[in-house]
Amino acid sequence: MAAGERGGAAGDSLSIYSLGPLIHNPQTVEELEKKGVRVVESVDDIRCGKVIVRSHGITRPDAEALAGKGVTIIDATCPFVKKAQEHARSLSRQGYAVTVVGDANHPEVKSIISYIEPGVPIFTSLAELQESSGIRKMGIVAQTTQSFENLMQFVSIALKKIQEVRVYNTICNATVLRQKESTAVARKADVMIVLGGYNSANTRRLAEICKESNPRTHHIETAGELPPDALDGVSCVGVTAGASTPEWIIEELLARIRATWREEKIQVSFYQ
Amino acid sequence: MAAGERGGAAGDSLSIYSLGPLIHNPQTVEELEKKGVRVVESVDDIRCGKVIVRSHGITRPDAEALAGKGVTIIDATCPFVKKAQEHARSLSRQGYAVTVVGDANHPEVKSIISYIEPGVPIFTSLAELQESSGIRKMGIVAQTTQSFENLMQFVSIALKKIQEVRVYNTICNATVLRQKESTAVARKADVMIVLGGYNSANTRRLAEICKESNPRTHHIETAGELPPDALDGVSCVGVTAGASTPEWIIEELLARIRATWREEKIQVSFYQ
Repeated sequence: MAAGERGGAAGDSLSIYSLGPLIHNPQTVEELEKKGVRVVESVDDIRCGKVIVRSHGITRPDAEALAGKGVTIIDATCPFVKKAQEHARSLSRQGYAVTVVGDANHPEVKSIISYIEPGVPIFTSLAELQESSGIRKMGIVAQTTQSFENLMQFVSIALKKIQEVRVYNTICNATVLRQKESTAVARKADVMIVLGGYNSANTRRLAEICKESNPRTHHIETAGELPPDALDGVSCVGVTAGASTPEWIIEELLARIRATWREEKIQVSFYQ
Repeated sequence: MAAGERGGAAGDSLSIYSLGPLIHNPQTVEELEKKGVRVVESVDDIRCGKVIVRSHGITRPDAEALAGKGVTIIDATCPFVKKAQEHARSLSRQGYAVTVVGDANHPEVKSIISYIEPGVPIFTSLAELQESSGIRKMGIVAQTTQSFENLMQFVSIALKKIQEVRVYNTICNATVLRQKESTAVARKADVMIVLGGYNSANTRRLAEICKESNPRTHHIETAGELPPDALDGVSCVGVTAGASTPEWIIEELLARIRATWREEKIQVSFYQ
């Protein structure tokens, strides 16, 4: 296919690709598409042009394939993810089995796992860890958006079974802080709203954590999804948003709360 | 002083020394003294003969001093303690600050700490760890008789503050098992008796743990110390003993319970 053609596996040298959605927020992805960023699911769909590697990182084979194509790589991998990849690789090279605390299907976890040397035992769930045997050295890293408590559960089980456990706390501080502060907001609010993509793991986790402190927690993607009666009889509404939720989505919700429930003088307690 | 003289710093070539009491059980130490094992507090008190290094191990300077004297060393250091010493040394050589989870005044902890390279930051308490700053790599080992829960408290605080935490679980399995099984006994018993030296850290810890499950827990050294009314109205008495408590001390207590409270048909639930 000649340069200049669009669609299929081709692309001209001005094409900007994103391997998977750049951010786990459908509304922002739509905005970016309007500006010419094309979301593709596989490196096979890219021939030339520029490729944005999103914050989750990409797998080692994908990185090697892209390097082989001579495309320009704009690497926006989160530095915490990069560290987790490096630690996972280094641990596996030093004879450690590796546990990646996280969702095995999440692109970030897939990218971390891809840096582990072949043949090294890999664990991503508590059940797998509990059933493990014959391991003397375990290295542990975490998906950057995991909760500290979850990481500690893995560390505790590993230490019960395995003599040496080497842990890199790769949880992103921003995530921990957001979870902590959002919980504080959820506790004092009558209703809690968590704003962000349903495909965003950190937003889903945030919603789970808020729900533990406040059963009246709603996870919505946009202001329009808030049920009209959600704030009936409420005097304080808490609002928080996932790391990937853009500012304008938040502003839209806050504006809607202010406009619709103005007369009730609802107090808005916000954390992001 | 000529060989053959006794007392003071001298000793003949047949002398058998123990650096500190061989076991944290006064009754057994007394028996051993009758058999010629002399307890000394310092390597300065030893010139020749044989020296038993007890299970707690000795400090590196003491080991070097003994080697220099040409005395015969009978090394009864617990293999778990030896591992903790080796890990502490190796961690400090690899640039890790070192936390030894344990009682800083216990000879075992002193012996472990003595293997840490000079100049390396050392921590033995949660408070010290909480106040630490500027540490990027923390190695953690434990006194062999510590509880797993205590080790996990240190690991949790370290992981909140420090990016890399490398833990060697040097807790003795026998201790963990004894604590676990004794707790089960304490829960079902009306009264719990923990038998062992007051100077035995693992016995004291065992008594503490049993007390959490059963407030009617007595820590005694010998059967004679059991208050006469301790088992009044009791239908099930639980008995456990520290790692250093000799068999005959236990037998004495069991015999006393059977003889004194025979008519009450007290059920004895025993774990050691």
